[in-house]
Amino acid sequence: MAEETIVVALGGNAILQPGQKGTAVEQRANIRATAGAIASLVEMGHRVVVTHGNGPQVGNILIQHEAGSDQVPAMPLDVCGAESQGQIGYMIQQALRNELRARGLPASVASVVTQVVVRADDPAFGNPTKPVGPFYPEDRARVLETERGWVMREVRPGFWRRVVPSPDPVRIVELEEVRTLSEAGTLVIASGGGGIPVTERADGVLEGVEAVIDKDLAGQRLAVGMGADVFAIFTDVDRVALAYGTPEQRFLDRMTLDEARTYLEAGHFPPGSMGPKVLAVIRFLEAGGGRALIASIKQAAEALAGKAGTTIVR
Amino acid sequence: MAEETIVVALGGNAILQPGQKGTAVEQRANIRATAGAIASLVEMGHRVVVTHGNGPQVGNILIQHEAGSDQVPAMPLDVCGAESQGQIGYMIQQALRNELRARGLPASVASVVTQVVVRADDPAFGNPTKPVGPFYPEDRARVLETERGWVMREVRPGFWRRVVPSPDPVRIVELEEVRTLSEAGTLVIASGGGGIPVTERADGVLEGVEAVIDKDLAGQRLAVGMGADVFAIFTDVDRVALAYGTPEQRFLDRMTLDEARTYLEAGHFPPGSMGPKVLAVIRFLEAGGGRALIASIKQAAEALAGKAGTTIVR
Repeated sequence: MAEETIVVALGGNAILQPGQKGTAVEQRANIRATAGAIASLVEMGHRVVVTHGNGPQVGNILIQHEAGSDQVPAMPLDVCGAESQGQIGYMIQQALRNELRARGLPASVASVVTQVVVRADDPAFGNPTKPVGPFYPEDRARVLETERGWVMREVRPGFWRRVVPSPDPVRIVELEEVRTLSEAGTLVIASGGGGIPVTERADGVLEGVEAVIDKDLAGQRLAVGMGADVFAIFTDVDRVALAYGTPEQRFLDRMTLDEARTYLEAGHFPPGSMGPKVLAVIRFLEAGGGRALIASIKQAAEALAGKAGTTIVR
Repeated sequence: MAEETIVVALGGNAILQPGQKGTAVEQRANIRATAGAIASLVEMGHRVVVTHGNGPQVGNILIQHEAGSDQVPAMPLDVCGAESQGQIGYMIQQALRNELRARGLPASVASVVTQVVVRADDPAFGNPTKPVGPFYPEDRARVLETERGWVMREVRPGFWRRVVPSPDPVRIVELEEVRTLSEAGTLVIASGGGGIPVTERADGVLEGVEAVIDKDLAGQRLAVGMGADVFAIFTDVDRVALAYGTPEQRFLDRMTLDEARTYLEAGHFPPGSMGPKVLAVIRFLEAGGGRALIASIKQAAEALAGKAGTTIVR
């Protein structure tokens, strides 16, 4: 099989699994397994670019910044996202380099700090919906609303969280740099956590904004920008399901672009989980991408061969 | 003048100035000024690679991790260093891209997460000397010694801090990736905070270690690896001084490699500040580097022209 360019989007549990606290030891063990799966794709001759989520990690960073805020200034959300790119990028980069080298493969891996442009007039900015960071009691929530201008929402009785906008990614700022490295044979890790959200002024100046970008939607922009043959979303389910969680639940091995659109519109995929993944896949195929996968990271190689996961084609 | 390759090492005050708390607003304002100075070098036709310190930033991150440690796991020091690379790299990268674009220059900038190999048998591991992170009362210090195996030292009566080794940098792991980007015209930010310290096992496996690497010594490895014509250490003093802080204090416009060695051996440069800078410069020139500068970031362009700062030549 000819070499393909594959953009791999890693979900949270490729790095941190439900129920785990998020120690470095836990994250490293998960990442080691993930690195093995990715290295298998490289071993098959493919060119791989990796992007990843950062939900649990940036959540922990926000808790740490809040806990230390009487001693040192808490950083805005864009800077916290950049910190999470450093943290996760480092761990993936080291594990992948080790794994590739152990297999006798060229072991060039690098994480690039990545900004992603969002539109300043994205409707999401008028309707922040994504809860981030720690839970607060109401009195502290009120203080944060006043002092920092945060939007707070009571997510459970007596427990408040900050909610932030989740605007649509428009453009990967460091796309050319990622491409340069990838073309030179480097396995690049980019656009971690959906990228650091920035707006672009009319004069071209980039400014960080306090928001979060869906990592699969940003991964789609990366995949198209890289001219990827395959956009592979690896997550914690084996396949896409219709009527998920109901008696009519049915897993799909294969889906066409038209079917994906129809199912998405019919409400088969929940907004917070499978919805954005299917939307990302639809956009990838609409932009000319060859095929997309939604599969478990444990079955990465099988999914690529069409023997596991859900393959989506035009 | 022909284009030169310049590796620029930015000191702490290029990012955060003494007396500042370290808010994102403060850091961004400092970095904007620094970006202007660096952009001037690019405008003169030079190829620039940037490295930077992370002392105040990783210090704050350690305080945050400690403050949040009853809620989320504190990360080891190598991971905290990686977080600081993301944080600082992002802010420099954004400011530089904005500045280059505003001047109508090609605006390709990228931060690469960078590991730096140190020797597992470096004598520094037997003698941790570098204080990092928060101050603790003695009882907490004793708990940390037992629970985490940290080495704690009473730095002021009643105030304890963790001390970690500061091993000598041997090799920039991501050197080839930095070179690839730089040769393609990208202004690369690399080896932040001296790089993430890792040891290399006999089988080639890299493992993070809890240590800090001097950013100027790591910058020297980067400069030699890049084949730099100029290694420029920008710091908070205008020039190198002999007998600093004494009535005999004398500033130097120029110094030869032999003189630098002699002055260093004679104890003119304090170990924690100018000492490692002069040592880094000596190593750069010994390895075949053309010339080195130690100067204020505010006089970057003048220093490069030999009209400010201290120039050190073979």
